[in-house]
Amino acid sequence: MKLKEEKVDSQLVSDFIDELVNQMRAQDTYGSWDGKKNEELLKDYIIDVQKRKEIPIIGDPDPDILWRVELFFNAVALTIEKRTGVLVVPMMSMHHEGFGRVILFGGRLVVVNKTLRDVHRFGYPTLEKLGEAGAKYALMGIEMITRFPEVARFEG
Amino acid sequence: MKLKEEKVDSQLVSDFIDELVNQMRAQDTYGSWDGKKNEELLKDYIIDVQKRKEIPIIGDPDPDILWRVELFFNAVALTIEKRTGVLVVPMMSMHHEGFGRVILFGGRLVVVNKTLRDVHRFGYPTLEKLGEAGAKYALMGIEMITRFPEVARFEG
Repeated sequence: MKLKEEKVDSQLVSDFIDELVNQMRAQDTYGSWDGKKNEELLKDYIIDVQKRKEIPIIGDPDPDILWRVELFFNAVALTIEKRTGVLVVPMMSMHHEGFGRVILFGGRLVVVNKTLRDVHRFGYPTLEKLGEAGAKYALMGIEMITRFPEVARFEG
Repeated sequence: MKLKEEKVDSQLVSDFIDELVNQMRAQDTYGSWDGKKNEELLKDYIIDVQKRKEIPIIGDPDPDILWRVELFFNAVALTIEKRTGVLVVPMMSMHHEGFGRVILFGGRLVVVNKTLRDVHRFGYPTLEKLGEAGAKYALMGIEMITRFPEVARFEG
């Protein structure tokens, strides 16, 4: 059982990373990133200890970061959708100083509800941690849909 | 039965108008509107046929209108909360040209899900129609909570 769970997780991690890469490439309308490897495309999501130290503790997130957060949660939504067949819609609302909220909902069910803090520092220490974080959110969403399938498939 | 339904509605209408007036007055930190009647406070929500004709068909909503739309749905949320005891959170996301979406959710239940169009023309022909519109949204939310109480009260 434990092994099986881990297997599901690693599949979710790679699904999430695939979706995130697709999201990034879909923005590249002129094909200028065609030669770039996935690791290169995702490099701005990686903030190691040294890099994190260089970011001020309080700050307003710039449009690039908001865009990355949006693509991150789009990828979570698509990962959930791929697994469950439920169309999942992300909604983000940001306030001053990088404080805000993101929710993902399918039908009438809020499958992920996350308060965002320090969005100007959004990132993960490694590519692996990035993938795990996305997969963790996706798993939350999948579990909610499993719990309340009727609400996730409610139309109207 | 019919009569009873109408009674519930008129109560909802007046609850909604009360909440909307409270929302407006709460913004008036210096008390400069203390002498204003409710009708006066709500007058920018009223767009009659003549006024509507003067608004361009396509346009970007100004901050004042966005603020009024926000207070409108805050008042819907509070009206639902008053009737059901469920804390309801509004989230609005606007795109260009007055197109967007507002959802209200309680617990993990999306109780109202509304696509917004032509937000720069947001308004109702009379105070009565304004009240009915708010009450209609509130009723939708209350019915969803009645239908899926476990989801609306889900914590976590």
